[in-house]
Amino acid sequence: MKNQKRIRDYDISIGRMSTGKLNSITDVAGVKVGHVTLNDGELKTGVTAVLPHDGNIFKNKVMAASYVINGFGKSIGLIQVDELGTIESPIVLTNTLSIGTAFDGVLDYMLEQNQDIGTTTGTINPIVCECNDGYLNSIRNRKVEKTHVLGAIKNADIEFEEGSVGAGTGMCCLGLKGGIGTSSRIVPLDNENYTLGSLVLSNFGIGEELLINGIKAGEKIKSLLSKKSGEGDKGSIIILLATDIPLSERQLKRICKRAVVGLSRTGSFIGNGSGDIVIGFTTANKIDHYEEKAICDMKVLSDNKIDWIFKAAAESVEEAILNSLICADTTIGRDEHMRYSLKEFIEDLL
Amino acid sequence: MKNQKRIRDYDISIGRMSTGKLNSITDVAGVKVGHVTLNDGELKTGVTAVLPHDGNIFKNKVMAASYVINGFGKSIGLIQVDELGTIESPIVLTNTLSIGTAFDGVLDYMLEQNQDIGTTTGTINPIVCECNDGYLNSIRNRKVEKTHVLGAIKNADIEFEEGSVGAGTGMCCLGLKGGIGTSSRIVPLDNENYTLGSLVLSNFGIGEELLINGIKAGEKIKSLLSKKSGEGDKGSIIILLATDIPLSERQLKRICKRAVVGLSRTGSFIGNGSGDIVIGFTTANKIDHYEEKAICDMKVLSDNKIDWIFKAAAESVEEAILNSLICADTTIGRDEHMRYSLKEFIEDLL
Amino acid sequence: MKNQKRIRDYDISIGRMSTGKLNSITDVAGVKVGHVTLNDGELKTGVTAVLPHDGNIFKNKVMAASYVINGFGKSIGLIQVDELGTIESPIVLTNTLSIGTAFDGVLDYMLEQNQDIGTTTGTINPIVCECNDGYLNSIRNRKVEKTHVLGAIKNADIEFEEGSVGAGTGMCCLGLKGGIGTSSRIVPLDNENYTLGSLVLSNFGIGEELLINGIKAGEKIKSLLSKKSGEGDKGSIIILLATDIPLSERQLKRICKRAVVGLSRTGSFIGNGSGDIVIGFTTANKIDHYEEKAICDMKVLSDNKIDWIFKAAAESVEEAILNSLICADTTIGRDEHMRYSLKEFIEDLL
Amino acid sequence: MKNQKRIRDYDISIGRMSTGKLNSITDVAGVKVGHVTLNDGELKTGVTAVLPHDGNIFKNKVMAASYVINGFGKSIGLIQVDELGTIESPIVLTNTLSIGTAFDGVLDYMLEQNQDIGTTTGTINPIVCECNDGYLNSIRNRKVEKTHVLGAIKNADIEFEEGSVGAGTGMCCLGLKGGIGTSSRIVPLDNENYTLGSLVLSNFGIGEELLINGIKAGEKIKSLLSKKSGEGDKGSIIILLATDIPLSERQLKRICKRAVVGLSRTGSFIGNGSGDIVIGFTTANKIDHYEEKAICDMKVLSDNKIDWIFKAAAESVEEAILNSLICADTTIGRDEHMRYSLKEFIEDLL
Repeated sequence: MKNQKRIRDYDISIGRMSTGKLNSITDVAGVKVGHVTLNDGELKTGVTAVLPHDGNIFKNKVMAASYVINGFGKSIGLIQVDELGTIESPIVLTNTLSIGTAFDGVLDYMLEQNQDIGTTTGTINPIVCECNDGYLNSIRNRKVEKTHVLGAIKNADIEFEEGSVGAGTGMCCLGLKGGIGTSSRIVPLDNENYTLGSLVLSNFGIGEELLINGIKAGEKIKSLLSKKSGEGDKGSIIILLATDIPLSERQLKRICKRAVVGLSRTGSFIGNGSGDIVIGFTTANKIDHYEEKAICDMKVLSDNKIDWIFKAAAESVEEAILNSLICADTTIGRDEHMRYSLKEFIEDLL
Repeated sequence: MKNQKRIRDYDISIGRMSTGKLNSITDVAGVKVGHVTLNDGELKTGVTAVLPHDGNIFKNKVMAASYVINGFGKSIGLIQVDELGTIESPIVLTNTLSIGTAFDGVLDYMLEQNQDIGTTTGTINPIVCECNDGYLNSIRNRKVEKTHVLGAIKNADIEFEEGSVGAGTGMCCLGLKGGIGTSSRIVPLDNENYTLGSLVLSNFGIGEELLINGIKAGEKIKSLLSKKSGEGDKGSIIILLATDIPLSERQLKRICKRAVVGLSRTGSFIGNGSGDIVIGFTTANKIDHYEEKAICDMKVLSDNKIDWIFKAAAESVEEAILNSLICADTTIGRDEHMRYSLKEFIEDLL
Repeated sequence: MKNQKRIRDYDISIGRMSTGKLNSITDVAGVKVGHVTLNDGELKTGVTAVLPHDGNIFKNKVMAASYVINGFGKSIGLIQVDELGTIESPIVLTNTLSIGTAFDGVLDYMLEQNQDIGTTTGTINPIVCECNDGYLNSIRNRKVEKTHVLGAIKNADIEFEEGSVGAGTGMCCLGLKGGIGTSSRIVPLDNENYTLGSLVLSNFGIGEELLINGIKAGEKIKSLLSKKSGEGDKGSIIILLATDIPLSERQLKRICKRAVVGLSRTGSFIGNGSGDIVIGFTTANKIDHYEEKAICDMKVLSDNKIDWIFKAAAESVEEAILNSLICADTTIGRDEHMRYSLKEFIEDLL
Repeated sequence: MKNQKRIRDYDISIGRMSTGKLNSITDVAGVKVGHVTLNDGELKTGVTAVLPHDGNIFKNKVMAASYVINGFGKSIGLIQVDELGTIESPIVLTNTLSIGTAFDGVLDYMLEQNQDIGTTTGTINPIVCECNDGYLNSIRNRKVEKTHVLGAIKNADIEFEEGSVGAGTGMCCLGLKGGIGTSSRIVPLDNENYTLGSLVLSNFGIGEELLINGIKAGEKIKSLLSKKSGEGDKGSIIILLATDIPLSERQLKRICKRAVVGLSRTGSFIGNGSGDIVIGFTTANKIDHYEEKAICDMKVLSDNKIDWIFKAAAESVEEAILNSLICADTTIGRDEHMRYSLKEFIEDLL
């Protein structure tokens, strides 16, 4: 958003559904995204935080599900998400070796906000996801600190940058510079408009496999780059889906599974080394931590109407990945490792 | 029920929760059970049908989940149960080699009742579960016919027999004669009484492992039987859980997982050859096949109150298994294979 | 194969890997495929059988895994495949309402061949998969008989027809006539050539979504067809993967998950009604039913080298689907329902 | 071991299989266990480390699987264990709010030992599991430091203490003091003796449910304690299984699932709040991180012989839990919270 040129600005429209106002995960009311970027020489990393809503997330949990496309990854917190069907903390993205620190940063935030955690009630399940930015970033130095996590949470806003920013600072994707991207779709149900939005941290794939809206761009990039784009898919992708549609956890998991459609259409073959993780949540039907009643009312979608939501997931994930590429900047990191931005080739590719 | 002496009649009470009126899965309003028994010389098999409710199950589906404790089994229909979270047919139990026929029998019933299936709407997902009664029954002869399935559905009633009846006619369990057993528990929630009931088709385990309410009865049986009780756990158990508590599919699956607690306490170690399957459904929140609305109202339990339901599942499954043993009759089947009833030893074991 | 014009004959090559000799699942040594086709007026259905090897499959099982992309389907036998990691019968494909009969047909074959089943050893796990051909076929009439299953097994050969044949006779896919398709890829490992082959029964998708090698063919078809291609994805796809590469069950499941990449690239968004199922097996490391030893030798792939196999799965599934379309014939079935063959448009689409 | 009186010393023998020499997880050659205990006033916590073997675990990974009995827990690393079937780090246990720190501690150890991680090869997947010791421990103070993790790894030895030690210092179980316990079983296969060992961090259950070898000890404890033992199962249990039997990942997961049998027999009903996690690994068939060959030799068990291993898992887990109780000491922690040791009642209970 923030004045960045996005994939639609190059007349590339993914799918047939309408986008939300900002074409962003933050089109889902209440959702905010914040970054802290660490970009200094061989330091190319950062933190991105996604807040499911404005209030106390521990006290008012959102219903959620996850789906592991490929489990070669270290994300924290998914086991409880799937067992209880809730998320009760901000979702934090960072590099692989900083997830312990990120966990501690989220903990600082949650313990400060909730004095009952660990004393009169149970504990808290921070969600921390990661990709390995070690090609561009000196990842062994572990420069992410707890304050960066708190900063990303504090920075969270409706408008945010995409590309080489936050957790995306050092990521590589499909032979190019990757990072943060987002997109959204409007889903009409019962004469009302609902929204589904995606946010990705892209770090997967091989250059020659790149597909842009069906065009085999990767084969052209390969020659343009005048060197091999790397020998294997060693990356990962984190995909977050947010919606305001009332959904059960079962339905949320089904929708998460459709992210792979968008992913496949950008050129992923879900490589061995690519820890591809999807988390979905809905801001409808919040769960009160101190619910006293046994039997509660909720709204839920009829599966008869779920196909449009599947399409919204597929389309918005594909577009979010392309946005992560086109918004990223050409980057030189550790040991002179370099990744071009898609911006430098896009005119030649279309 | 039907004038059979059950495990509580021997002063053995499992757990601390109250049972329903009949201590049966049919204490859940609407649930009915019917048998057709084939018992003639080396023919020792049959069909048991469980109806989730009185109406048209295809048009008004029940919410459901399944859990595979051990997948060495051939049950039909579970994949769709878990994907869509519904059951839309009677649940039919029979022997392993008759599940194709049982599927066809359920199909006859459903196609007759629903002329839209296969023409103006989609198809139907019959649920057919099985255990291998081949030790007592001449299973290769495949004597179960579609009419037996229709008969079991037609016979379905609130009161029904346990033990060597219906699908349980030829089953063996823990070195003894097994078969059909049931039990139920009352679960108070928000000042109302709800019910959870279990029905088992027991066919698992090794005689020397039998536990009765903590007593190592199997070690005594072993000496009483004066012969080896068999060389391995080659059986299976099908466990059905029914309730009227409003539950999500996620919660139903969690409850299904607790069946293993009751199972373990009767002496199972979940042997390799034992295809142990749990299916749970709730009669609350029925799903209209032709639902027109996108967003629907439903009731759902708070997970904060789920522990009593977990206990109800554990207790009622343990008791249902013991009922399946104590209600069964000593049986001689094919090739003079024989299994004693627990009735013949129960006085000596306590 | 059999003198049919396939997608490569139109200069459309999917991916970059080499195909096997026949570009067929039967390039994997020992694998055979047979059909029985029922095509008479509103009867548009049949049976397809895939034999994993030439010998006694029950006595020498193949290692296997399955992956449920979308569980809105009724396939039989997958629970045991995933628990034990083996397939011990032919894999039979047919229409949804005939799986009970198909199960019985496989049973006839297996019991005849193995007198020990159900007497001195355990039972047998037939694998039966299905799609709903009810749009073109009068599916409620259930005309598939056990003899058709035995016929398909008997007909199994290395060369076989694709398109509107066997179980594919009445299937629809992406607004066109679907059916049976196959393809294969060569995977070099340790200086030897191994093979991975795919076979699909295609019955999914919406016409306007059709993608052919990245080209948005569906948008053109839509106008060519001069009528709506249907309002929803009510189909399914069954995907079988065979290989001679030594793999663990864990690895086989990972490979099955990559089928979705090829599927997505033909235009599927994994619709709600589409019961999409993948089964993979390897002919390496056969499992002896009567294995006496506790500790056995086997070969297994290093995961470090698995990426080429992932690509082979993705590429061959995409091509198999396209072959199922291009080999199918325009078909008029029940109630004058009609589906065109891709053959009629292919020249205009490229 | 270390001169502690264990459950067998009270003439309580679980099951019928023989124990290993030390009746410990360290009976599996190469496995070592170390503790750092933090026990000072309201500080009641610590770290326990389990080393799968003596060498470089990253370079020579062990084959592994996990099974989530109940996912209300925060363990780190399981997603990758199940995807790749390997463990490549020590397994570290601590309290819930210290898993970020523990992750960092393992990282320090692994990065120091492997200069290639994060530079020339990929990253590392530390395994960190937790229970919530917040009833006795001032868990919000987060006093576990990275040096404690390194200390526990350094302390690892064949003989180690059980009960209120390491991660078990502040744990409660079945109304009593819980903590660390271990046990093992000998499994004869092909005329050789193999070993399976269990180690638990016990923190689950309600006092009145306690079962000791079938005896309803909990009902007696309840009266002995003269006060309520707590209102719900808010704990957890971590169960580690180690063996030297050659097993596939599929088989390891099956064995992990049998831990629930032992757990159930000590009085667990798998309460909502109890995050019950099982991890199993085998020291056979180590996986070389830099494997060059595509096709490798390995040994694997025939499933025909797996029942004894299932029993070994069930028996050793039950006994390990009882050892964790009987070896623990009566403890007073934060806010005068107190838990008695089973030692104080054991004579009265039998």
